[in-house]
Amino acid sequence: MQENLARRRTYERDGVEFSRTVAFTDGLFAIAMTLLVVSLAVPTLSDESSVSELADKLSDDISTFVSFAISFAVIGRYWLAHHTYFSALARVDRTLITLNLVYLAFIAFLPFPTALLGAYFSNPLSIVIYAVNLAIVSGMEVVLFSYAQNHELLEQKLPRDVYRYGAAMSLAPVAFFLLSIPVAFLSTTLAACCWFLGIPLAAIAQRWKPKGADELLLG
Amino acid sequence: MQENLARRRTYERDGVEFSRTVAFTDGLFAIAMTLLVVSLAVPTLSDESSVSELADKLSDDISTFVSFAISFAVIGRYWLAHHTYFSALARVDRTLITLNLVYLAFIAFLPFPTALLGAYFSNPLSIVIYAVNLAIVSGMEVVLFSYAQNHELLEQKLPRDVYRYGAAMSLAPVAFFLLSIPVAFLSTTLAACCWFLGIPLAAIAQRWKPKGADELLLG
Amino acid sequence: MQENLARRRTYERDGVEFSRTVAFTDGLFAIAMTLLVVSLAVPTLSDESSVSELADKLSDDISTFVSFAISFAVIGRYWLAHHTYFSALARVDRTLITLNLVYLAFIAFLPFPTALLGAYFSNPLSIVIYAVNLAIVSGMEVVLFSYAQNHELLEQKLPRDVYRYGAAMSLAPVAFFLLSIPVAFLSTTLAACCWFLGIPLAAIAQRWKPKGADELLLG
Amino acid sequence: MQENLARRRTYERDGVEFSRTVAFTDGLFAIAMTLLVVSLAVPTLSDESSVSELADKLSDDISTFVSFAISFAVIGRYWLAHHTYFSALARVDRTLITLNLVYLAFIAFLPFPTALLGAYFSNPLSIVIYAVNLAIVSGMEVVLFSYAQNHELLEQKLPRDVYRYGAAMSLAPVAFFLLSIPVAFLSTTLAACCWFLGIPLAAIAQRWKPKGADELLLG
Repeated sequence: MQENLARRRTYERDGVEFSRTVAFTDGLFAIAMTLLVVSLAVPTLSDESSVSELADKLSDDISTFVSFAISFAVIGRYWLAHHTYFSALARVDRTLITLNLVYLAFIAFLPFPTALLGAYFSNPLSIVIYAVNLAIVSGMEVVLFSYAQNHELLEQKLPRDVYRYGAAMSLAPVAFFLLSIPVAFLSTTLAACCWFLGIPLAAIAQRWKPKGADELLLG
Repeated sequence: MQENLARRRTYERDGVEFSRTVAFTDGLFAIAMTLLVVSLAVPTLSDESSVSELADKLSDDISTFVSFAISFAVIGRYWLAHHTYFSALARVDRTLITLNLVYLAFIAFLPFPTALLGAYFSNPLSIVIYAVNLAIVSGMEVVLFSYAQNHELLEQKLPRDVYRYGAAMSLAPVAFFLLSIPVAFLSTTLAACCWFLGIPLAAIAQRWKPKGADELLLG
Repeated sequence: MQENLARRRTYERDGVEFSRTVAFTDGLFAIAMTLLVVSLAVPTLSDESSVSELADKLSDDISTFVSFAISFAVIGRYWLAHHTYFSALARVDRTLITLNLVYLAFIAFLPFPTALLGAYFSNPLSIVIYAVNLAIVSGMEVVLFSYAQNHELLEQKLPRDVYRYGAAMSLAPVAFFLLSIPVAFLSTTLAACCWFLGIPLAAIAQRWKPKGADELLLG
Repeated sequence: MQENLARRRTYERDGVEFSRTVAFTDGLFAIAMTLLVVSLAVPTLSDESSVSELADKLSDDISTFVSFAISFAVIGRYWLAHHTYFSALARVDRTLITLNLVYLAFIAFLPFPTALLGAYFSNPLSIVIYAVNLAIVSGMEVVLFSYAQNHELLEQKLPRDVYRYGAAMSLAPVAFFLLSIPVAFLSTTLAACCWFLGIPLAAIAQRWKPKGADELLLG
């Protein structure tokens, strides 16, 4: 009986409950990514058919387009990581589903910092709010990852070195986002560049990568 | 023949129709949760790069962020309960699907009371509208729950004491939301606190919980 | 070979392509229903904590709430019918998928006539636009229904009398919506009442219902 | 071992990961199509119940309705093509999923050029932005198509002539969209007509179509 009850509380990969968690997550990601476009406002023109006026107005709003593109890429990147993460899960439990909801709250919130960044790219506080939001998302990724490793939810438990490497790779963006906060008060452009430090790091980190890590880890 | 027709009217757990009901519900929840962010407006600044002005404007809007967070948590909590509820269902019928749509109407409506609460937290009427909306959602939960119990839709019919305990636990929030209505006219903050009375209650209610309730009931 | 190719063009109920059509439809319905709330604007108050002022402003907007409720009920009703319709399908083909997209275009458009109706309920043109939109949706329902019947897409082809009864029941709303158009110029409230003529009709139509119709027809 | 690892990186048609990619795509398409309606604003009337004033205001906004209709048809058309494309896939890999996200970024962006076109149809720059966006979407279609062909992702590899024909048919819209850019500076209406050159082309191209192309190619 006890065993039976314990089994009820986890939801296996081929069941309706696992699928729902995934479908709900995908729906929320898709909406958050599509809502980004809502912050792009059609400019008001004095001469409706003037190419130069429209071009001027749109180039004034260039940072809204840049922040749309960055946020789409960022959320897309998190979705890819989430996709890979869930592909390694054999089952979910209620705690993981709840942690996943917390993670999604910060994904759903992202269109706001994105709009803020688009409107006030030169304002250090916009950068700080955006960076803190992403640091939390990346931090939650680590929480989800270690929870699955430590509660028998993965299809195959990761070897210690692979687990550590994976956790380090997910923590690195947290560090970069936090680093960008003081930098934002010097230069907001430089701060935004910090967010992409993960790209060279990923190249360097290849050296330390334990054997089999690629196949076992989130993206 | 009669039996065959009766079977057509219920949709088993592994069929397309059961999945559609679940997928539609998940889609609507995901959208309602993501739309909450639309009520967060980017403030207008006189000095675009002024940290203090942006900080002031955002802290003026603090109640919109608090109401985003509360509503995300509240809808997330309902989604979790819905997830657990459906995990106990063996099949759905057309009446349950219709009741589920009524339930979803009040979930879809929530972004409006949320925006109202964010804009006018000190206004007792905002609190009343929000509380009535949530009372209806919790009430519909009880309706869905008892309908499934009484129409052979659950995988295993609940023992009488477990059913009563579950119905009471779902009705408690209705009572707390209704209680907050008169309280709102004394203090809106105190009224909002009433909404969280479920947390201590859940702890106390552990004592009366019938054996096996945890495993059989909605969250 | 020819037979093999012909088979490729239809997508059976248990395949990915059938599911996608259904999932896409459900997503679009869920979004259209949730977007209705976006047209509900938070009023501007001179005294933020005044209950009477907020109550006045909200009751000025009463028609936006009524039109939210009507449209949620209407779209929910169409979703239920679509759900029942697809439950009778054994497969879809590309033409049906395309017809389904046309049908969905008018579902996706509905939030606009809803907002129009909410803003200008007393304007006959709002009623006309809303009624025409719904007449097209109901008309497309008949098209989808007869296409499936005549192209071997149903799990079991309907007997002639059941098919005719079903088509008539789907055409009736078209008639009521069209009827409401001239009525709107006399009284917009009376016109809106025409939309609900289907309820007494459904009760009366029970008499003419062929045997087995309930089990075989869309809702 | 090496083989096992290689297999992990592709996701077969009947697995959760394939479904997620499809579900995420369908969600994003459904939202992009439904968000188009958000750019349709309810006009402000001086006499709320005046039919002629509302009719005038709405006919002033006629281009927003036309651009809603065109964009719904265009995105619907892409969704159909994507549906057919995925029906030919036996599996996906991480690169294809990433390319699919890039493709989706331009689908998610479409509501903005649509709103721009609706507001300033007579402005050549609106036409250019819309055309460039669609040219990229069609171009990405070709990229997705050739990637699948060359990386063993299709259920059956296409014969050379069918592959070439399919790529040409997908590239044709790119040419038409690019052609419309210079035309826009002569006449924006004429430019919009260029977008539909695919319809006569498809009729003419029937002649050159290799045997079996219909059955093997994206729509």
